[in-house]
Amino acid sequence: MRFFSLPFLASLGVLAVPLVAASPPPSGDILGFTPASSRIQRDWENKFRALPDPARMRADMKLLAARPHHVGSPYDKQNAEWILKQFKDAGWDAHIETFNVLFPTPKQRLVELVAPTRFTAKLQEPPVPGDPTSFQTSEQLPTYNAYSIDGDVTGPLVYVNYGIPSDYDELARRGVSVKGAIVIARYGQSWRGIKPKVAAEHGAIGCLIYSDPGDDGYNDGDVFPKGPMRPADGVQRGSVMDMPTYPGDPLTPGVGATKDAKRLALKDVKVLTKIPVLPISYGDAKPLLAAIGGDVAPSGWRGALPITYKVGPGPARVHLVVKSNWDIKPIYDVIGQLRGSSSPDEWVVRGNHHDAWVNGADDPIAGQVALLEEVRALGALVKQGWHPKRTIIYAAWDGEEPGLLGSTEWAETHAKELAAHAVAYLNSDTNGRGYLGVSGSHVLEKFINGVMRDITDPETGASVESRARARSLAHASAATRKDIRGRADLHIGALGSGSDYTAFLQHVGVPSMNLGFGGEDQGGVYHSVYDDFYWYTHFSDTSFVYGKALAQTAGTAVMRLADADVIPYDFTDLAQTVGTYVTELKTLHKTMASDVVEHNREVADSGFFLTNDPRHPLTLPKAETAIPDLDFAPLDSATAALTRAATRYQAAFAQSMDGAATESFVKLNTDLLQSERVLLSDAGLPNRPWFKHLLYAPGYYTGYGVKTIPGVREAIEQKEWPLATTEIGRVSAALNAEAALVDRAATELGH
Amino acid sequence: MRFFSLPFLASLGVLAVPLVAASPPPSGDILGFTPASSRIQRDWENKFRALPDPARMRADMKLLAARPHHVGSPYDKQNAEWILKQFKDAGWDAHIETFNVLFPTPKQRLVELVAPTRFTAKLQEPPVPGDPTSFQTSEQLPTYNAYSIDGDVTGPLVYVNYGIPSDYDELARRGVSVKGAIVIARYGQSWRGIKPKVAAEHGAIGCLIYSDPGDDGYNDGDVFPKGPMRPADGVQRGSVMDMPTYPGDPLTPGVGATKDAKRLALKDVKVLTKIPVLPISYGDAKPLLAAIGGDVAPSGWRGALPITYKVGPGPARVHLVVKSNWDIKPIYDVIGQLRGSSSPDEWVVRGNHHDAWVNGADDPIAGQVALLEEVRALGALVKQGWHPKRTIIYAAWDGEEPGLLGSTEWAETHAKELAAHAVAYLNSDTNGRGYLGVSGSHVLEKFINGVMRDITDPETGASVESRARARSLAHASAATRKDIRGRADLHIGALGSGSDYTAFLQHVGVPSMNLGFGGEDQGGVYHSVYDDFYWYTHFSDTSFVYGKALAQTAGTAVMRLADADVIPYDFTDLAQTVGTYVTELKTLHKTMASDVVEHNREVADSGFFLTNDPRHPLTLPKAETAIPDLDFAPLDSATAALTRAATRYQAAFAQSMDGAATESFVKLNTDLLQSERVLLSDAGLPNRPWFKHLLYAPGYYTGYGVKTIPGVREAIEQKEWPLATTEIGRVSAALNAEAALVDRAATELGH
Repeated sequence: MRFFSLPFLASLGVLAVPLVAASPPPSGDILGFTPASSRIQRDWENKFRALPDPARMRADMKLLAARPHHVGSPYDKQNAEWILKQFKDAGWDAHIETFNVLFPTPKQRLVELVAPTRFTAKLQEPPVPGDPTSFQTSEQLPTYNAYSIDGDVTGPLVYVNYGIPSDYDELARRGVSVKGAIVIARYGQSWRGIKPKVAAEHGAIGCLIYSDPGDDGYNDGDVFPKGPMRPADGVQRGSVMDMPTYPGDPLTPGVGATKDAKRLALKDVKVLTKIPVLPISYGDAKPLLAAIGGDVAPSGWRGALPITYKVGPGPARVHLVVKSNWDIKPIYDVIGQLRGSSSPDEWVVRGNHHDAWVNGADDPIAGQVALLEEVRALGALVKQGWHPKRTIIYAAWDGEEPGLLGSTEWAETHAKELAAHAVAYLNSDTNGRGYLGVSGSHVLEKFINGVMRDITDPETGASVESRARARSLAHASAATRKDIRGRADLHIGALGSGSDYTAFLQHVGVPSMNLGFGGEDQGGVYHSVYDDFYWYTHFSDTSFVYGKALAQTAGTAVMRLADADVIPYDFTDLAQTVGTYVTELKTLHKTMASDVVEHNREVADSGFFLTNDPRHPLTLPKAETAIPDLDFAPLDSATAALTRAATRYQAAFAQSMDGAATESFVKLNTDLLQSERVLLSDAGLPNRPWFKHLLYAPGYYTGYGVKTIPGVREAIEQKEWPLATTEIGRVSAALNAEAALVDRAATELGH
Repeated sequence: MRFFSLPFLASLGVLAVPLVAASPPPSGDILGFTPASSRIQRDWENKFRALPDPARMRADMKLLAARPHHVGSPYDKQNAEWILKQFKDAGWDAHIETFNVLFPTPKQRLVELVAPTRFTAKLQEPPVPGDPTSFQTSEQLPTYNAYSIDGDVTGPLVYVNYGIPSDYDELARRGVSVKGAIVIARYGQSWRGIKPKVAAEHGAIGCLIYSDPGDDGYNDGDVFPKGPMRPADGVQRGSVMDMPTYPGDPLTPGVGATKDAKRLALKDVKVLTKIPVLPISYGDAKPLLAAIGGDVAPSGWRGALPITYKVGPGPARVHLVVKSNWDIKPIYDVIGQLRGSSSPDEWVVRGNHHDAWVNGADDPIAGQVALLEEVRALGALVKQGWHPKRTIIYAAWDGEEPGLLGSTEWAETHAKELAAHAVAYLNSDTNGRGYLGVSGSHVLEKFINGVMRDITDPETGASVESRARARSLAHASAATRKDIRGRADLHIGALGSGSDYTAFLQHVGVPSMNLGFGGEDQGGVYHSVYDDFYWYTHFSDTSFVYGKALAQTAGTAVMRLADADVIPYDFTDLAQTVGTYVTELKTLHKTMASDVVEHNREVADSGFFLTNDPRHPLTLPKAETAIPDLDFAPLDSATAALTRAATRYQAAFAQSMDGAATESFVKLNTDLLQSERVLLSDAGLPNRPWFKHLLYAPGYYTGYGVKTIPGVREAIEQKEWPLATTEIGRVSAALNAEAALVDRAATELGH
């Protein structure tokens, strides 16, 4: 284990530190468990956490990442069958569930500079001596963005920075339009699918997306194979399907893509891009960017290439061709279960995808091998006599990369059952070295904090919670530090999109969490041929101790959710978090209002005229419409109601766990099971009915990034004031319903 | 005039804007003038401001920048003689005052990488086709840093970012020492002389300073000759004399370097560097930096070269040789005067240097040609019958570039006269396109605001004050905007060092100001052979309208200072500004105290241990000594006294200017003349007695950058608590003395 040794610590003169920092041995009651149940549970957990084996994870990764295993490839199917065998060998009731999904693959790709000079992009990632799997060129998917429409376009090139809406505002101030142009955007700041979406809305006819060396190339460290960062020819593949509208198979929105499902005609699909898109390397991007003229790009737009970044349009002209095979391909979800002993109709679901863009050692095999160790360890516990109260379902999803296909189709197929039975969904995906990152439903915030306190960080010997807390403090402002120190639980982030929890949380309303370690390893091989066993075992969690920690964390969480006497939701953290969201919305609205006032004052005072450089003039802005008032009182009142109910429930819960008969919790658990579902709207979010959760959604213009209370927040951002008021009403109603449910739950506890 | 045309404005649909933005015609009383005097003054000023001629400035620049004219060169002397002739032709009483100063020039320069590969730096700036003066290689000073000691050293290379003290703290956290190493620092963030000074304090044996393309190269725009930015082989020459200790001739601190002055032996000079230093281009720096290994540099340390910036030490090893001719050279200050009619013993001094590193079109000829237009225009006014009340002295300084030599030796030689007679010193240096930048003594803040309101900006037709105000507002926080809008006068900056005002303000206590336009032109030719007529007339104030505006601004200020009935100092702006400095000091002290508390808490909580990455470990910090309390009450009380006196004086002044006999102001003016001198300390600042001003000084560890209330501020920064208390006492005493003087002045006004 190269990452930690006592001599290293001694040399720093900090021998005493591990003693004070080490986590106390697990003790005390576990959230949702009576004292008696807690004692039994701790014994089983201790047995469980001893089982995950780094050597086996290493071997599993070597095998699963041995060949390219994207959707439709032979090795994708072979992996699914091998994973199924692992489930069965471990004693699980397991099967493969197959769906048939639209999955385009490249038929023709061309990027050429046609003026002022000529250059044809390579669009190839070369093999690297020493890295055996990088030579598997015949099986590798070419570099492309899946679900780009077909197209053959030629136009002047415009550099649009990250290609997010505010970048187009900057261009407009410079009098630069992308109408009829091909845009080149760098990866980052938004999910990639947003870039062609926004470009098309502004009239662009094509889109290139490149990886700037300032974002994941040589700027941050040595490039592969000397170091972990992206080499000059490395390309980030990826989906550009409009997932903020709906993820999953584009032909079967809202229903499972089973063999006989009713399918949309390709022409009626709304989630393909409107313009052709291709990703390119910085090796290919450099001559294109260097050929762009016009204004020098704003300082925040400049990457790490040794050129003067300019915005265009032209004189660079680009010819872009994208043509795909629009085939239906089978995907293979591996589903295993351990049936619950006393509450089989309450389900705890855990998943990680198995498909990759190429070899995918980090993404997703690093998470998949942890999941497989959980499968083996839980199976071993069952053989030793452990019987989970609730049903445990483990899934190895296929088709995540193109568009969360496997998880979405499965969740859509089983939506009614999930709505009736699912306690929680726990997801993982990539995994690295460092700190546990947790995002998820805030009803699970207190629960996962309890888990984190009981998991040992392999580098420091302290608890995973201690490390995460220390990291939050190290980067915090004084105000944030005070908040962190004054709160029992660490805040967890909210979930947007970007992995397989999406359908569970945002379409069905299953309380969900995403778990993964990271922050100490960096890399630039994401979605390239170089995300492989060689890269992972040289630059990431090389000894798989964080793979073990992930298996311990997720597995412990699954066991607790499966065995708890009362489903371990807590509503005080939820209520407090909703309160901060409401405060954010008010601040957003207030800031927009004062910004408009200031803007209009500067217009009236000729401020923009007086600061305009005639040699580099910006378009002088006009006065803007004042921001109207917005009545947040319904949200305040609903948040207050939820807070009262949550406090009452928490008090009742604390009194009830000591010595109560566990049978008395049956009705309570049935009610609790619906608590996240209450936060959904059948009608869904404005313009995207598939997304039904009123608290969490991926941003319509940010992609993976979450927007909390999305209906209200996006209405404010888009200045749709009547809609904002309507959405405040819908969210407030849901929060009031949640408060009523929690209040009933407290009553059921007899307090 | 390419910078402005009505059709351009019309096309933006803002035809009405110039009407509202245009400055009102000058009217009302001028600060320090009775109503009757104001009327007469405005007539003369209007005549004056019509005279400066862009075409003549262009011709003057072409001539003065036609050949390299550094100290000791034939063309330096020729320029001085030509300038003298301009003074005389304009009717001034003028002469050349010669000093003899130490001025080293290169004899041997070598930078070679000797491991792991070999590379010899070019150390040459090549001629550029189309730019005639770039071909004058035989007359150009080689690229070097003047006042580097001689040396021949070889050692491992360490990259130290900007080479300021906090950069060495970062290196120490990574366990990197520069003892026995050669450091390479990038230009920027501090004055260049700080870099070898701090490097030597940390044990380095040599220092390279390079211009990173992220700071003034291709990152910001096209490089010369296509654009204004620094090309790959461009080098920033410059002095590395320890000017924060004392500027001027190193051999004659505190006295004029006249022929017979007593001189230090070279070995006793304290202001040479302790280690050899050379500046290099980014063309030369790239292979050196690319050869450095070790940790990847922190993200804020990375420039725009296409490499992974690492800190070292080694494996790169560098051989550095610097040898100079240590000659005494003559410098030629051109001094002209217009003798005052009624108060000849009150002097208004105005200067701009004429020497350059090479051709120096921007630095300093852009300012020098404006000064010459003032000389001609004031001479013309005298011929028309204008007789300034006070004596006006104009100076074209030599030897500014090596170390403010000409101005310092002149001010030291005439220190007693200046202390007795000088009303103000007005400086300029480079000049460009855009906004007027003003820094200076705050007794002149209200005065210069009045001047700015009466000068028309050539691009917008608005007043120079309106543009400066609009710019401040455009970049301000909400709190700062409120301050700006609530205050009659725009804040002016405080003066550190970096041009010829230094000796006047900080050694003699003459209220000083530095004036120059800029902010709309950028460039990367500073101190290179490419700062020449070709560059200036392609990329800067190409039509010399801002040269005209500078002549109008400085000339108007000189005329007002020379003719005012009461010397136009105001003490309310000073008192308020001192108040903000005191608040800054308290905040600095308080922040340091709370930072130490937080630091020690994180030490105690093992926070640094828990966030330390074992693969890239940082040295774990230890607990620090708590910051003691500091009694700021004396400063608060003195500031309050000054505020009271200033308010009383301002009221008395307002009542006195209307209809008073101007003779009654004679005694008052004599007293006012001493108001800045009261803020000096004979003993000077701690460790640097040459610097006597208690409110303004260049930072001992920042160089040009000002430290206000430097004795107290630097004592706090260096954690010298007893010294901080002593300095609080000294500054408070000076402020109390100033308050007493202002109070007496108010009494003299009869109120």
